[in-house]
Amino acid sequence: MNQKVSIDENMQVSGAGGGRRGRGERGGAAARRAARSGGGPVQQLGYIRRVRPAHEILDEEGLALIEANADTVLEEIGIEFRDDAEALALWKEAGADVRGDRVHFPKGLCRELLKTAPSVFTQHARNPERSVQIGGNATVFAPVYGPPFVRDLDGVRRYATIEDFRNFVKLSYMAPAIHHSGGTVCEPVDVPVNKRHLDMVYAHMRFSDKPFMGSVTAPERAEDTVEMAKILFGEEFVDNNTVVINLINANSPMVFDETMLGAAKVYARNNQACIVTPFILSGAMSPVTVAGTLTQVLAEVLAGAAFTQLVRPGAPVVFGTFASSISMQSGAPTFGTPEPSLVSYGAAQLARRLGLPFRTGGSLTASKVPDAQSAYESANTLNSTVMAGTNFVLHAAGWLEGGLVSSYEKFMMDIDQLGMQQRLCEPLDLSENGQAMDAIREVGPGSHYLGCAHTQANFQTAFYRSTIADNNSYEQWQAEGEKTAQARANQLARNWLESYQPPALDEAIDEALQDYIARRKESMPDAFA
Amino acid sequence: MNQKVSIDENMQVSGAGGGRRGRGERGGAAARRAARSGGGPVQQLGYIRRVRPAHEILDEEGLALIEANADTVLEEIGIEFRDDAEALALWKEAGADVRGDRVHFPKGLCRELLKTAPSVFTQHARNPERSVQIGGNATVFAPVYGPPFVRDLDGVRRYATIEDFRNFVKLSYMAPAIHHSGGTVCEPVDVPVNKRHLDMVYAHMRFSDKPFMGSVTAPERAEDTVEMAKILFGEEFVDNNTVVINLINANSPMVFDETMLGAAKVYARNNQACIVTPFILSGAMSPVTVAGTLTQVLAEVLAGAAFTQLVRPGAPVVFGTFASSISMQSGAPTFGTPEPSLVSYGAAQLARRLGLPFRTGGSLTASKVPDAQSAYESANTLNSTVMAGTNFVLHAAGWLEGGLVSSYEKFMMDIDQLGMQQRLCEPLDLSENGQAMDAIREVGPGSHYLGCAHTQANFQTAFYRSTIADNNSYEQWQAEGEKTAQARANQLARNWLESYQPPALDEAIDEALQDYIARRKESMPDAFA
Repeated sequence: MNQKVSIDENMQVSGAGGGRRGRGERGGAAARRAARSGGGPVQQLGYIRRVRPAHEILDEEGLALIEANADTVLEEIGIEFRDDAEALALWKEAGADVRGDRVHFPKGLCRELLKTAPSVFTQHARNPERSVQIGGNATVFAPVYGPPFVRDLDGVRRYATIEDFRNFVKLSYMAPAIHHSGGTVCEPVDVPVNKRHLDMVYAHMRFSDKPFMGSVTAPERAEDTVEMAKILFGEEFVDNNTVVINLINANSPMVFDETMLGAAKVYARNNQACIVTPFILSGAMSPVTVAGTLTQVLAEVLAGAAFTQLVRPGAPVVFGTFASSISMQSGAPTFGTPEPSLVSYGAAQLARRLGLPFRTGGSLTASKVPDAQSAYESANTLNSTVMAGTNFVLHAAGWLEGGLVSSYEKFMMDIDQLGMQQRLCEPLDLSENGQAMDAIREVGPGSHYLGCAHTQANFQTAFYRSTIADNNSYEQWQAEGEKTAQARANQLARNWLESYQPPALDEAIDEALQDYIARRKESMPDAFA
Repeated sequence: MNQKVSIDENMQVSGAGGGRRGRGERGGAAARRAARSGGGPVQQLGYIRRVRPAHEILDEEGLALIEANADTVLEEIGIEFRDDAEALALWKEAGADVRGDRVHFPKGLCRELLKTAPSVFTQHARNPERSVQIGGNATVFAPVYGPPFVRDLDGVRRYATIEDFRNFVKLSYMAPAIHHSGGTVCEPVDVPVNKRHLDMVYAHMRFSDKPFMGSVTAPERAEDTVEMAKILFGEEFVDNNTVVINLINANSPMVFDETMLGAAKVYARNNQACIVTPFILSGAMSPVTVAGTLTQVLAEVLAGAAFTQLVRPGAPVVFGTFASSISMQSGAPTFGTPEPSLVSYGAAQLARRLGLPFRTGGSLTASKVPDAQSAYESANTLNSTVMAGTNFVLHAAGWLEGGLVSSYEKFMMDIDQLGMQQRLCEPLDLSENGQAMDAIREVGPGSHYLGCAHTQANFQTAFYRSTIADNNSYEQWQAEGEKTAQARANQLARNWLESYQPPALDEAIDEALQDYIARRKESMPDAFA
């Protein structure tokens, strides 16, 4: 499955469960209505298969310039692989110039190594219908990752718990345009830090059947992830297929630390996917200019992604970017502004030239509450993410306060937006029905289309129906209590959580997973820094 | 000035005052800071000159299909030019098949007539630095048009007054990324309907120096607009140049009524610009499908725009679209959803093929308040509008509640977004400074860029600085009263209105305008339906 194929060929590649739509997406209006009023999980959409070219901001000359500059950074400045003798030995063996922790790369070395990396691969879900293609013309939406806090349904901002974690897994499972269960949907701080990865991975396995992400906070936690995946998928299946995708952040500028390298080694060795992601707040971790940031991002990804190929040639690896800027007044991160969008567009182009799947963006905001700031910033980020042709979109729903907070209300708003983006990516219907000439003939000048045959035949599926928007008259909106989008999202989240039904899971597997977790927890100290 | 030039040539065309930036846009941080804290008008930006290709959704085959279908509509179904004998006579003379009010167009007639229409023209402002190019690679942002209500700074929704009208003209004058004063920024219902156009046009002339729109609600009001323009610009200048641009809506489906035709005739005859705009809520005024809607839009624009060339060959005319859908449950208009974006993309392509400037989009929303719904919907509309390569963007700021309300707070939020879009459209800096290799060398692995020489030299202009977003820490935001974006926008609007200073206007001209208005008002009945 992990083979080098060209982007053009990818157009034909069909991952497991990769039918463009689940059964009857267009018939999902009733299901959505049910969901809106508190019904069960609605019709799931398959991952997006884009049919239109991505928006690009760099021409050949600009791309070549940035690539040459990145090569210069790799050769002259180098990248640090800190406190990992094995990594340094691998680089030395590959022909790099290693001085202390600093690795200098002869021109072309990283690109040469990356020739074994697949440009497209399938991440399998336990429900084959939920498996996703990573790369090519696919776009996969995954929820928020990392926040230690939640903003809960009573409007309280507090530390996240394992209960919150499960809730976000459940909501992601139910959301039609979330194709992936994600990873650390919030940080369950009520579980000891050395044990919580077990509960997190289990929650993804038990409360969802969508693909998910593994633990990266220590090599042994990555090992636990792989072991649990083997229980869920079968050992042989995991040996031969990618079943987890994992976030390997660079410690920008130009450093990979031992924690991330340790996790990366475990996953690459097991043929599982790494998303090598420079975590960039321009102005702090990279230059303040777009071209300078792109240069550094490319250099870091080249080094980190090539490293996975040193560990195991052919291991799936994704070109990641987390692009943001900082306020030059306060130093605080900013989101939804033009410069990070430009970085995303440019980085997507660099990834395509490199033949790697691309990750960036999401629904990012610095706002403390799901207000207009939150929505403008998230929409700007999401629109540019999708237009860039991004393959894997982390933080696609629920992100608030610069990633410090997972918000239930924001999650419900964002998944509505994801549904819209998915519809936007569909091919235009130019069939006879799409052309609607009969309707135009039937109605004619000065009449209206409300009752015509064509409208009757198409109205249920013609338009995307928002689950959040209030389009009623002012008077009706007033009579219903002048609710904001936030208030409506709150009610919708409550309804969904109330009506959640877990996907079936083989009891023997469930017991084996719980048994594994219990044994591992017992082997660990009670408290752990 | 109004000549047929190709899009490629347009790249070099420079309208009066069309320098890409006013003086020192990049140095505008201090000015923006001043504005934020209540200072005077900030550095104005020139209209946008896009450097990247528009996003397109239709290939050659799809475009040809829709064009052929539109030709069929024009020939077989026809378009009604209601209650306007002069219009019908002009069509008959031109070779159309006129039956009653219904005009059937031989294939190719409208396209042939449109060969005299300019693909790019300059709309002059009384301040030549504010003149704008309409068409080609230019994008011009104009404020909200039409609402009878305002949502004021005390949070009250009420009928708009002439005082509100003046306020929105003043705010538009001050907003750096609003390039145009617009037209009916709100409907001043405290002035009699037969007289209010005089006060509206005067407000644009007196309280702003940006280009503006004329009255279209009756032929004699259009005449008043032209007469007042002659006082402001001089008679000869108006005879030879375009100084007003005017909204001529089709009464979709497939009808132009006598009011709109009357105004169109006045403006075209005077060489002033018409934006021929099918006002479409898909499902009511057009088929529920994107392709069907595009077909009808094209047919209506072909007929309406060609009509202006019958009146005066060479008169500037814009391909307009107002694309929205309706909720098939309530019949209410919806905004920011995928289908209208697709209509905008497709219509923009059809306009480019026709060689006409294109108008669509804005910052549209059905929300009753400037909340998250309002922002998501506006951002979706605006992003697709700009990506479509739209030349004239009406409703770019202040629109709320499906166009029923002009909102001060929303206006302040939207102009911040317009500034971001303008920055997004700029060329990428690939200079040595943009490449920032010195910075990457200086900082090196594991350090940070906060204090490096490159950051010091660039930080004031490197990132777009939002006037609305709060990027502070949660604790600081809390200490400052947990303000939402709406609350911050409210304060900003108050500050701006307080610090407004009118642009200079020759006293003799001002007196002549006031004298004209007084005489005209005296000639009119006191009350008028």
